[in-house]
Amino acid sequence: MIRTLLEDLADLVGIDAVTTDEAAMAFATEDWRGRYRGKALCVARPANAEQVAGIVACCARHGVPVLPQAGNTGLVGGSVPAAEGPAPVIVALERLRRIRKVDPVNNTMEVEAGCMLANVQEAARAAGRYYPVSLGAEGSCQIGGTIATNAGGTSVLRYGNTRENVLGLQVVLPDGTVWTNLTALRKNNTGYDLKHLFIGSEGTLGIVTAAVLKLHPLPTRHAVAWAGLADPESAVRLLTLVQERDGAKLSGFELMNRNQLDLVVRHVPQRRSPLEDAHDWHLLIELSDTGGNDDLDATLEGILAQALDDGLIADAVIAASERQRADMWEVRHSVSEANKKGGIGLTTDCAVPVSATADFIRAASAAVGALAPKAELVVVGHMGDGNVHFIPFFTFDQWDKLEDRDALAEAIRHAVNDAAHALGGTFSAEHGVGQVSLKEMARYKSPADLALMRAVKAALDPKGLFNPGRLIPPDA
Amino acid sequence: MIRTLLEDLADLVGIDAVTTDEAAMAFATEDWRGRYRGKALCVARPANAEQVAGIVACCARHGVPVLPQAGNTGLVGGSVPAAEGPAPVIVALERLRRIRKVDPVNNTMEVEAGCMLANVQEAARAAGRYYPVSLGAEGSCQIGGTIATNAGGTSVLRYGNTRENVLGLQVVLPDGTVWTNLTALRKNNTGYDLKHLFIGSEGTLGIVTAAVLKLHPLPTRHAVAWAGLADPESAVRLLTLVQERDGAKLSGFELMNRNQLDLVVRHVPQRRSPLEDAHDWHLLIELSDTGGNDDLDATLEGILAQALDDGLIADAVIAASERQRADMWEVRHSVSEANKKGGIGLTTDCAVPVSATADFIRAASAAVGALAPKAELVVVGHMGDGNVHFIPFFTFDQWDKLEDRDALAEAIRHAVNDAAHALGGTFSAEHGVGQVSLKEMARYKSPADLALMRAVKAALDPKGLFNPGRLIPPDA
Repeated sequence: MIRTLLEDLADLVGIDAVTTDEAAMAFATEDWRGRYRGKALCVARPANAEQVAGIVACCARHGVPVLPQAGNTGLVGGSVPAAEGPAPVIVALERLRRIRKVDPVNNTMEVEAGCMLANVQEAARAAGRYYPVSLGAEGSCQIGGTIATNAGGTSVLRYGNTRENVLGLQVVLPDGTVWTNLTALRKNNTGYDLKHLFIGSEGTLGIVTAAVLKLHPLPTRHAVAWAGLADPESAVRLLTLVQERDGAKLSGFELMNRNQLDLVVRHVPQRRSPLEDAHDWHLLIELSDTGGNDDLDATLEGILAQALDDGLIADAVIAASERQRADMWEVRHSVSEANKKGGIGLTTDCAVPVSATADFIRAASAAVGALAPKAELVVVGHMGDGNVHFIPFFTFDQWDKLEDRDALAEAIRHAVNDAAHALGGTFSAEHGVGQVSLKEMARYKSPADLALMRAVKAALDPKGLFNPGRLIPPDA
Repeated sequence: MIRTLLEDLADLVGIDAVTTDEAAMAFATEDWRGRYRGKALCVARPANAEQVAGIVACCARHGVPVLPQAGNTGLVGGSVPAAEGPAPVIVALERLRRIRKVDPVNNTMEVEAGCMLANVQEAARAAGRYYPVSLGAEGSCQIGGTIATNAGGTSVLRYGNTRENVLGLQVVLPDGTVWTNLTALRKNNTGYDLKHLFIGSEGTLGIVTAAVLKLHPLPTRHAVAWAGLADPESAVRLLTLVQERDGAKLSGFELMNRNQLDLVVRHVPQRRSPLEDAHDWHLLIELSDTGGNDDLDATLEGILAQALDDGLIADAVIAASERQRADMWEVRHSVSEANKKGGIGLTTDCAVPVSATADFIRAASAAVGALAPKAELVVVGHMGDGNVHFIPFFTFDQWDKLEDRDALAEAIRHAVNDAAHALGGTFSAEHGVGQVSLKEMARYKSPADLALMRAVKAALDPKGLFNPGRLIPPDA
């Protein structure tokens, strides 16, 4: 049967576009941090939506699961197959990489799912427009993956998640139908807004093959500051101060603690702390604007002067050049690389109401301190939208010597997520569920939530062949 | 059986909260323009979500349809029952009118479905924040209705539709479950984002009982101009000019033609044209900002001076006071009242890509001119998001003398919607489907769209008791 499937697939997409060799498939069966490795029947690389539909129909005939993949840069093992269970066909979307149309008057852009995020940003910029989704992996992640995971990043506080920046979609459904809804409209009230089912569905309901993205006016002026401060409470108060003084211009409000900054400085070449003295907490604050003749540096300086007066910050520096601005952002964007090199971080991805972020950090610190007193507590987050990555951190040596690591990791993850949940928060703000948080779905989602998700899944994928076992925990 | 149902309902919500008298029910069985009148078994006015759930379960037991209603200010007959077919129980949400919580640090607000939009706007403002959804009916429409219809209005180009301003929902499902998802999070990637199923579902999937809304920084400075110009093409070019000069500050870009302005001036007391000379087309342009010390009037003046130089506009005036700004907006907000008083307007609600708005107006004008040469063409729209209300208009006298009015109205509606559809547009941008556009759903939505909608409807409302016959046309 499997031989027939492979032959059918080769007929559909060409023999060169079907990979079965295990070593050659490693780019798709393993995640970039090397934490998850799974088994696949093959990797198929279709050239267009019709070929995707053909593959899906073929897999349905053979009763074989389908796992879509676009970029494979995720942090939760969501884009790689499981080690156990029926091996899927991986549908890699890298050949669908055309930027089909940029419409600067309508402020939209139509792209294929395999386009790299950085290329999309660049094409928007070339037309004098801005595609705001920005994250560490932008140089290798693909648009289809950002849609399937509703990617977040550093500009959500101003521009929203990927979800808020998608106007239209083309999706291949589990029955092989190509659902084409590539509208470039900002208003469209004609029944259920079905695209939202697919955004963030992690490949369980369909395969995104193309999208219409929303573009924004290109910010032309920026002011960036780095501040040192004593505690997260002060950071929350400073955020409110910025929002009240000139909230519409706020485009970045990133928090990290001393341990996180130390990791970056230690492990990534050419990174240094923007401030001379050591501080327990750090903020990167960015204002930006699209025109006018306001002096943004002066606005930011005024806000920071008041923050100093009010005792919210201990020190701050405003970037004096494009180079310095880039340097400050480089420190922020080097976090993943630093943490990968520095040891084993148990990355969590909670969001809470912004007003509860300080309480969350305090509660999580206490809970993890009790479970793993030797772990360093690394904290980095998109504070402007309440998304705090709380990362209990071990040196490689510590980690190797730990007994019962998996149980400890799970206990720590639950403790952090419990702290968020108790404050009305979530265990996955932007990374998604993947393999890491499937148990959390059962632990935190309400029975009504899970029942609705199961009903939707059964309605769209009655055979259960799209990423089976993912996203929705088994019915208890 | 019906007697029992009424007794059951009275037991649930109290005898005073169940109305069966036909005259007393008229507020709920008839729309405000008096165009749609239907039959209901009763109007039930529950006091909380549990009572809503009780009513729903009771109706399910009796096999009686349910029609939720919050405000009854719609323009498409969506919130009133049909004249034919099984009469529903109308669930009126006016008693759920508590503003439960305003969190200015998190920029969120939790409200019940029966809150009036204007009260929500006011509560946000009292906390120094901004709830941006704004529309003509804001003094009487209710939040639940704005959510069920994904209400648009005049600020969509900057802040999005109602959909983009809802973070959490509580919904009573067709099986009587209360699905509570009142999270106040800007990021939450934990499975399907189910709230989007209910937003814009026009009461066919559930009854919204409460919501968490997103608040924004309060704009503190505004500049408003009124411009006269020769044609819609110039309006599109001016829009692009504003967006390129200072796009992030643009908060209003409203178009109307001479016929529309004349109707307002003629039929609404104290309204006058902001410009002395007559022009074929008019624009209201608003910039706003939350801080800084930019002179917005100067920015707007600079843009308009360039527009004059480039020949895009013939004349313009910038409001010199708060009073003048309000006057200009009053002209815009008086459109519904003027058109109701002035005659019979066949309101349409198309949106097209902004880059296609001028083509749309030209094509629709030609098509309607051929069908009804005597109709005046009234055009008013939220041009900044491509939403153009193209309104073939008859005097009462003309309308009374027309033979075969219904057929003509339908032919005209199809002609306008065809013009939009041919340009990648939609027949309902913001008003929704209701009774007016059900046939359009069958005419313009793809088979894949309709199949997906039917699958979702069957999964959530298998008995088909929530607003039966609405939104999804019968399977052909």
